[in-house]
Amino acid sequence: MNSIITGTGTYIPKIIKKNSEFLEKEFYGEQNEPFETSNEIIIEKFKGITGIEERRYLEPELQNSDAATIAARIAIEESKIDPETIDQIIFAHNFGDIRYNDNQSDMLPSLASRVKHLLRIKNPNCVAYDIIFGCPGWLQGMIQADNYIKAGVAKTCLIIGSETLARVVDPHDRDSMIYADGAGACIVQAKEVSDKGILSHAAQSFTYDEANYLFFGESNKIIPKISTRYIKMYGRKIYEFALNNVPNAMKIALDKSGVPIENIKKILIHQANEKMDEAIVKRFYRLCKTKMPKDIMPMSIKKLGNSSVATVPTLLDLILKKQLEGHEINEGDAILFASVGAGMHVNAVVYQF
Amino acid sequence: MNSIITGTGTYIPKIIKKNSEFLEKEFYGEQNEPFETSNEIIIEKFKGITGIEERRYLEPELQNSDAATIAARIAIEESKIDPETIDQIIFAHNFGDIRYNDNQSDMLPSLASRVKHLLRIKNPNCVAYDIIFGCPGWLQGMIQADNYIKAGVAKTCLIIGSETLARVVDPHDRDSMIYADGAGACIVQAKEVSDKGILSHAAQSFTYDEANYLFFGESNKIIPKISTRYIKMYGRKIYEFALNNVPNAMKIALDKSGVPIENIKKILIHQANEKMDEAIVKRFYRLCKTKMPKDIMPMSIKKLGNSSVATVPTLLDLILKKQLEGHEINEGDAILFASVGAGMHVNAVVYQF
Repeated sequence: MNSIITGTGTYIPKIIKKNSEFLEKEFYGEQNEPFETSNEIIIEKFKGITGIEERRYLEPELQNSDAATIAARIAIEESKIDPETIDQIIFAHNFGDIRYNDNQSDMLPSLASRVKHLLRIKNPNCVAYDIIFGCPGWLQGMIQADNYIKAGVAKTCLIIGSETLARVVDPHDRDSMIYADGAGACIVQAKEVSDKGILSHAAQSFTYDEANYLFFGESNKIIPKISTRYIKMYGRKIYEFALNNVPNAMKIALDKSGVPIENIKKILIHQANEKMDEAIVKRFYRLCKTKMPKDIMPMSIKKLGNSSVATVPTLLDLILKKQLEGHEINEGDAILFASVGAGMHVNAVVYQF
Repeated sequence: MNSIITGTGTYIPKIIKKNSEFLEKEFYGEQNEPFETSNEIIIEKFKGITGIEERRYLEPELQNSDAATIAARIAIEESKIDPETIDQIIFAHNFGDIRYNDNQSDMLPSLASRVKHLLRIKNPNCVAYDIIFGCPGWLQGMIQADNYIKAGVAKTCLIIGSETLARVVDPHDRDSMIYADGAGACIVQAKEVSDKGILSHAAQSFTYDEANYLFFGESNKIIPKISTRYIKMYGRKIYEFALNNVPNAMKIALDKSGVPIENIKKILIHQANEKMDEAIVKRFYRLCKTKMPKDIMPMSIKKLGNSSVATVPTLLDLILKKQLEGHEINEGDAILFASVGAGMHVNAVVYQF
């Protein structure tokens, strides 16, 4: 019994936030000092490294679980399943629902429960839970779904990765320009095939030294009496960590799958940072002693930024729907998913279309 | 291959908060009106229904993941495993880490990552993730661990239920008296036995009408310019929901296990409310057309309150360590776990010692 993706959906938020909109921000460094460099130069450098020109922010009247529900509905429609046949709803996020201009995370009830409610699914045997696993949460949800399907516990799973990072950014931190909002979802079904679907996976958690590479911290600008915390990261450490560990996880998954590296047609990697992603994939091919093919790595970060758990399912949906120029996935193609993020966690999945 | 509990641990917070400490509170109703009844009478009625005389609050200098780590360490020591052999750390909670006197949930990184970090576990193949599933989260973590063990994906799992509800209570809501802090953990290991360990389970999510029976809402006392939200519930609806659905989930698990009801020696039910718990268990026996045995239902709520995900593992640990007067579990005993909470979710597990 293998796990086959039978539908995908995404919700790309409507608000476009261009790099130029950060020109007037007061950026401060980690030592709470204002930068001497001008914002023009900061933004130019930022674009050079991350590849981001603009990102999407969710409409103020919507919350994370609303965006997720839209993406989920599209995935369900595409899969042509009866929503009442879904056995598991697995929702990966990191901050719950946060109202616009608020600072409290709300996951009471869990976001998976909210989506199930909004989808008007009645079947009580559809178990809905959230998983917190940093940016690799959606891919980890796929791995959990595959485990349930292989164990005969579930036949149909809805896996969602949806996040509103724009609601937890420190406006005085230049890293705020990386983060975006987004929602992606897919339906995975058990099918009696042996050579298609999820062929293998790998997941690892590095917490000994790395647990706080991404963390929740106060603004870079000291504002008396305000202790609101925001998403924060040690970018340099994450970069080195990712280069050292993601290629390895990708190779573990590839080796387990038995698929020759030449057969991998696309690598869908978490859209964290363009330069980092390129360096990871280059190192993966070096590790496999194989020349990196051209156009192996579709990227959406330029226009969509880093929406955490949502980047990989969104990228997949865009390619399958031929909305990402120059990239397509065809029947028979093997692809490799990979992700890295807060925890620090890394994971990878080999999937055969 | 069956899933065997080889160690348990709990952390019971040090601060005892007696009912009398609520005498000076200004309680308001759901319509934001002050109560005409005196606090003496409110507290007396509260005690009569919930059974709660006092509850525990976590020490201000600790956070949820700290308490969880203490409980986890005890479970690990008792199981005599090398912590580096743990394959999965599953941490169930609903509000992340909340600092004392703060209102932001922090789960960046996930609490499972924090515990793994604090336990100084190095093995990257120990995958650490959080699950959000309301009060039944710990039991759902046990079910997930059992699925992994049965599927051959994991051999040793650490399952934690830990919560600091005292940090999300509205001081103007009389329901605030229900909530407590606590941490429980256990080690589950794969063993080559067929008649012991987790024999069966059931889990259901009811979200069509029930998703918001527990929710995050503003204070019952209107305070201008303050929009902080707290844990809130529709107690009457939850009571009716639980009576209608928990006995059924218990019976599904029991029927699947093949264990005759007479062999169930103890029922360890989520410590939500004494009267509700008694009514659930009574209805379960009625559903099974069997007389409810005396002393079947150990309770800790009187002294510990409702600590959400932590109540069931704490109760188990207290009984196994003979710290709950009048109750013990012996080799050969079958027990039934059951829980209900925000989502709304219900679940049940039959376990054979």
